[in-house]
Amino acid sequence: MRQVLSGHGASRGSALGRARVRQPHALEVAEEHIAPAAVPAELRRLHTAIDAVRVEMRNMRDRLHGALAHEVGEFLDLHSLLLDDPELLQGLDDLVGKGLYGADYALRLQRDRLAAVFEAMDDAYFRSRVEDIDHVIGRVHAMLHRRDAELKGVSGEILVADGVAPAELSQLQSQGVLAVVTAGGSALAHSAILARSLHLPLVVGAPQALHQVNDGDVLLVDGASGTIIIEPNAADLREYRGRLREEKRERKQLHRLRREPSRTLDEVDIRLWANAESREDVTGAHALGAAGVGLYRTEFLFLQRSELPGEDEQFRAYRDVVLAMTGRTVTIRTMDIGADKADRTGLALADEPNPALGVRGVRLSLSRTPVFETQLRAILRASGYGPVRILVPMVSNREEMLAVAGMIRRLTRDLREEGHELAEHVPLGAMIEVPAAALALSCFIDTVDFVSIGTNDLTQYLLAADRGNDALGDLYSPLHPAMLKLLQGVIRTARARGKPVAVCGEMAGDPALTPLLLALGLEEFSLHPGTLLEVRRAIRAQRLDALRAAAPALLRCRDRDAIQRWLDRMRAA
Amino acid sequence: MRQVLSGHGASRGSALGRARVRQPHALEVAEEHIAPAAVPAELRRLHTAIDAVRVEMRNMRDRLHGALAHEVGEFLDLHSLLLDDPELLQGLDDLVGKGLYGADYALRLQRDRLAAVFEAMDDAYFRSRVEDIDHVIGRVHAMLHRRDAELKGVSGEILVADGVAPAELSQLQSQGVLAVVTAGGSALAHSAILARSLHLPLVVGAPQALHQVNDGDVLLVDGASGTIIIEPNAADLREYRGRLREEKRERKQLHRLRREPSRTLDEVDIRLWANAESREDVTGAHALGAAGVGLYRTEFLFLQRSELPGEDEQFRAYRDVVLAMTGRTVTIRTMDIGADKADRTGLALADEPNPALGVRGVRLSLSRTPVFETQLRAILRASGYGPVRILVPMVSNREEMLAVAGMIRRLTRDLREEGHELAEHVPLGAMIEVPAAALALSCFIDTVDFVSIGTNDLTQYLLAADRGNDALGDLYSPLHPAMLKLLQGVIRTARARGKPVAVCGEMAGDPALTPLLLALGLEEFSLHPGTLLEVRRAIRAQRLDALRAAAPALLRCRDRDAIQRWLDRMRAA
Repeated sequence: MRQVLSGHGASRGSALGRARVRQPHALEVAEEHIAPAAVPAELRRLHTAIDAVRVEMRNMRDRLHGALAHEVGEFLDLHSLLLDDPELLQGLDDLVGKGLYGADYALRLQRDRLAAVFEAMDDAYFRSRVEDIDHVIGRVHAMLHRRDAELKGVSGEILVADGVAPAELSQLQSQGVLAVVTAGGSALAHSAILARSLHLPLVVGAPQALHQVNDGDVLLVDGASGTIIIEPNAADLREYRGRLREEKRERKQLHRLRREPSRTLDEVDIRLWANAESREDVTGAHALGAAGVGLYRTEFLFLQRSELPGEDEQFRAYRDVVLAMTGRTVTIRTMDIGADKADRTGLALADEPNPALGVRGVRLSLSRTPVFETQLRAILRASGYGPVRILVPMVSNREEMLAVAGMIRRLTRDLREEGHELAEHVPLGAMIEVPAAALALSCFIDTVDFVSIGTNDLTQYLLAADRGNDALGDLYSPLHPAMLKLLQGVIRTARARGKPVAVCGEMAGDPALTPLLLALGLEEFSLHPGTLLEVRRAIRAQRLDALRAAAPALLRCRDRDAIQRWLDRMRAA
Repeated sequence: MRQVLSGHGASRGSALGRARVRQPHALEVAEEHIAPAAVPAELRRLHTAIDAVRVEMRNMRDRLHGALAHEVGEFLDLHSLLLDDPELLQGLDDLVGKGLYGADYALRLQRDRLAAVFEAMDDAYFRSRVEDIDHVIGRVHAMLHRRDAELKGVSGEILVADGVAPAELSQLQSQGVLAVVTAGGSALAHSAILARSLHLPLVVGAPQALHQVNDGDVLLVDGASGTIIIEPNAADLREYRGRLREEKRERKQLHRLRREPSRTLDEVDIRLWANAESREDVTGAHALGAAGVGLYRTEFLFLQRSELPGEDEQFRAYRDVVLAMTGRTVTIRTMDIGADKADRTGLALADEPNPALGVRGVRLSLSRTPVFETQLRAILRASGYGPVRILVPMVSNREEMLAVAGMIRRLTRDLREEGHELAEHVPLGAMIEVPAAALALSCFIDTVDFVSIGTNDLTQYLLAADRGNDALGDLYSPLHPAMLKLLQGVIRTARARGKPVAVCGEMAGDPALTPLLLALGLEEFSLHPGTLLEVRRAIRAQRLDALRAAAPALLRCRDRDAIQRWLDRMRAA
């Protein structure tokens, strides 16, 4: 039966696929019995799913690096552990083998059993573990059905869920999820910004979907309008194909922009740098005409292994990026590791109560100087092969920058004495992501050659709102008057001293926010290559003088709605 | 053998007592055998200590509320759990009963055994559990010796340790610890500020102490000069008695200030409010001539129990404080609860990855409106008995204050209709502790009647440095140029609109920082009654005009050393 639901469009794009419904809590499974003869097959089916989940989780763990890593880490460890719990596994086997229940119903019974034990505990911590059990059992359950679905030949799925954690999105996409529909959420939340940067269609605020969509229903989702059609008819499909053609034409037009300058209507050139952490990112950046690499993340060298990388290995990695960019500048960020990243080398502290507020970034680097010196030596050596800049994360004060600058001076001298060929000068920059550094930039701007604003963490600290915590709703949002004030202040301070300043957080890659950043005086963006052309298009549609003239109105906004209205006006203009 | 060591004085006061040395890691215990006949007594000794630690930990857990609660919570649960681990206990019994080892050595063997198991694990999370094992076993070990020491009649001890967590200090003091000497640390770290507010002598930066002091040595510690004397001689003791007399005379002089005004040399009156969460605090505040209660914490009503308090119970608690202050204003802060507080009511979310950046304070209140409304009704009803103000914690934007103000308007109307007598107007204030709220105060100052700056959390978020995380060293410190700028901005914005503004964090109670706050324009302090007279004395020693004239120099400071030098100049002046 065709049915139309509507939510809020949060990330554009259309998708057609079967629904996978993830119920928020307990599994809704009907009682289901099997014949004794069916036991071996059912056990096989169950264990195949459990093993697949185990592999999936291990793969996720291994792939963790870069921007999303810290939002997932410990969480995955805990879940892997639950999945290996002998009590859980034996209980399931008994329910199927002796109880003659189907695998799905066994999962549900076992879930309820464990949940009852935990819920009876007198301790909030243990009570909360029920959510983890739900998550793990829910994953196995989904896997049982994913397998079934695959057998039926459906290749893409549309996830319908209560909510979706920012950390899940890229994983979901790589699993073949075509679009996501959530009951809650907001178009301004971190999940939505991420979905847009992944080009994953997302509809939020559609609570009816959870009740009215069944697993396996065919869904047609339009992430622009927020429309969800259950069991679409021929006319819907025709319209969908029309939309696809339209989207394709748009992509083609966008593609033509790769050789065009990032220039506003009033002829001001904006520098678009690329964020990169893989060879593909670097290649993509080059092909799209990025000014260079504005943020080369180095965590992957440290996090996927149990031993620290040596100087030569790092040197080769950095040199190859420099060579691939053929003379354009590569900005290498020193290791940004903390207790929340999946660190197996023992580099980071293990159990901080609030890892986001702990020993990470330059704090960790300065407490592990031999490791840090090895990295700095490798970067400095790479500077002999093309222009390199060094970017230091999590700076909070002048003392830290002076310490780093002193180390670089000393290492440069050592390397030259050892006969290495280095660049004349390797510019040193600070990531501005700690609010104190943003507010007091003028106290240490003399110690740096450039600055790069990490808006993701800056927003998180400024609002005291964990960007990975979905329970905060849309409290985490850069569209706060304080954030605009701080951005303007940093950009002004840097420009007054003639120091280049870029934004390298998610904000820079969201074309919806391009007018806002231009109005605040930003002339350098660093973003994922995947969103570079859209931001270029947004830049080419604006007059900088008009935006600058509208900046005072923007800075007078007292709340998010007012900022949103300003953005709407600028888009309309 | 008399021996003199020196560290940095971090909290004034002298102490004479036996040393209790807490080695940073493994227990240093020599191999020790017992006779088979001694087994029952040794087992009894061991289990008495284990039981005592269990009780001690349970008591700590139960007493957790107020400012320190969130720094301890989950940590204690984990440790209680380890202490009940059957494997741990059986292993100990076997080592004593069958192995004929002394209890101390058994603890050490068992510790090494468990540590080896955990350390061999491939997972950083488990490897880090070794620290928890060390902590729990170390506690039992200390208890064995505390008991021994008590038998020998030594009533007070001086803790010598690698470092000390802020959360431990008040606990240590209530256990009878007279002073603390640490190998690391800084006089500007959070631990030191807390020690000063507890009047607990503290010497930091004395690494030799760990090697040269033995358990049971008699120590003489001077928290002002940082001197530690091992086995003091008669001359030392004479000098110590002289110092005690001096301290007593000083306390007497200080006591005389309780009827004096908090007035600067140039005749400006400063308002000193009291922070309170118990009846004693309120009585103390009244006796010392506090202007009123500037921060009445209400978490204790919610956290020490498994059921939420009803309206009448809360009303009686608030009314009694109002009555006890006999006409002086009482500022009641609405529940400031989050995942990091020891919440047994299920009010807070259970497992946030960064509880300090999670759903807490007004965020939680607005997501649990029935609970919040009950509290607001109780506070409004108390306003019929004397002047009351409502203070809202963790505000980050205008929307939140509008929501709270709307609720208060509606509840006031309801209560009046129900026939309750309420104050004409109950002033509404915002805690400024989220950096975004501090920076964008002008966006919502029209929604509040007063503001109160929570410098503890504000520093934490501004610097992205967890104040409970000792590994951060002295990175957590309000003496950062950005903090001064922010404080000045908030004070200015509030005063320009004629709204009273106070500081209610630890900074307000540290007389060393009084000149700085006065220079930034602050005229209201809210502090623990225990430090009120010292701050009053500090105020009475300053000329406000001179401090204000020196403010530009303060705001030009580029790093902590410069701020410290400014403070030294003002103290000297």
